[in-house]
Amino acid sequence: MENNVLTANATGQKSFMNPKEFLAHWQGHRKLTRRIIDAFPEDKLFEFRIGGMRPFAEMAREFIGMATPSLYGMVTGEWKPLEAILPAGVNGQPTTKADLLALWDAVTPEIDELYSQIPEADFHKTISLFNKYEGQIHSLLLYIADNEIHHRGQGYVYLRALNIEPPFFFDR
Amino acid sequence: MENNVLTANATGQKSFMNPKEFLAHWQGHRKLTRRIIDAFPEDKLFEFRIGGMRPFAEMAREFIGMATPSLYGMVTGEWKPLEAILPAGVNGQPTTKADLLALWDAVTPEIDELYSQIPEADFHKTISLFNKYEGQIHSLLLYIADNEIHHRGQGYVYLRALNIEPPFFFDR
Repeated sequence: MENNVLTANATGQKSFMNPKEFLAHWQGHRKLTRRIIDAFPEDKLFEFRIGGMRPFAEMAREFIGMATPSLYGMVTGEWKPLEAILPAGVNGQPTTKADLLALWDAVTPEIDELYSQIPEADFHKTISLFNKYEGQIHSLLLYIADNEIHHRGQGYVYLRALNIEPPFFFDR
Repeated sequence: MENNVLTANATGQKSFMNPKEFLAHWQGHRKLTRRIIDAFPEDKLFEFRIGGMRPFAEMAREFIGMATPSLYGMVTGEWKPLEAILPAGVNGQPTTKADLLALWDAVTPEIDELYSQIPEADFHKTISLFNKYEGQIHSLLLYIADNEIHHRGQGYVYLRALNIEPPFFFDR
């Protein structure tokens, strides 16, 4: 794709999406995911499953474990597990809905803070996430958001199977 | 977010994602969705449901109905239903897996073709999709891809509930 800056339009945008827009997109999805967590009765959140899949609490813990550890590594080059980078006093292995939501809320501003430290020119830099998954930073971040959308869709089926009306998908 | 072109990096990328990358992202997801459709036994594809949700064939028909009609309107300003813009001989209301896959495959190159007609400067233009959903073109297209990821995640639960191992999410 040609990248002649002279053809940039009046708003200065010559891209599909800029870094600020992706962050808003991701945090918007995270708001919806938080509402899905909260829509589960506590016991079902940690126990209900269909077809041998994980309970939704485990999926949500996965989203959290992918978010700040990935960003931390993108910024510092060091790959650490969630617990190593959590603020003091936050339980990284929640077993109650209140603790899971507290963990969720603790990482929300950390995502903003770490993401803002990625230089705009780095979003197309190729890295090896956790020394394991090679890709450009923008593509890896998009994967993390997509993974959340994918599994959250599964959380919707769990809620429907439990006769609970989930929040609208488009309401972020 | 500042948009000073002088700070663009060596690859010429000063964005989170460029238009070509989004198309590859979307078509990559569509490839996976096609494999999920194909993984269903024919009767289950059109009949199996959990918690009152739609069978997966209906969800897949929705993805198709959102894709080319949205792009067609973004390019021409005219909002038409899928049937009005399908190539001759393609069944827009499939009732068999073969017809659903044929419809899927008919729209795949049309997505490429229509998408390529969106001027790069237009991705941040605000439009009213189907005279109903206001948003910037990039944001509306991302919504369409997200909607597919979301409901395809539900298709994964259907397959698991049917004891069918679905394709890996990361394999596109």
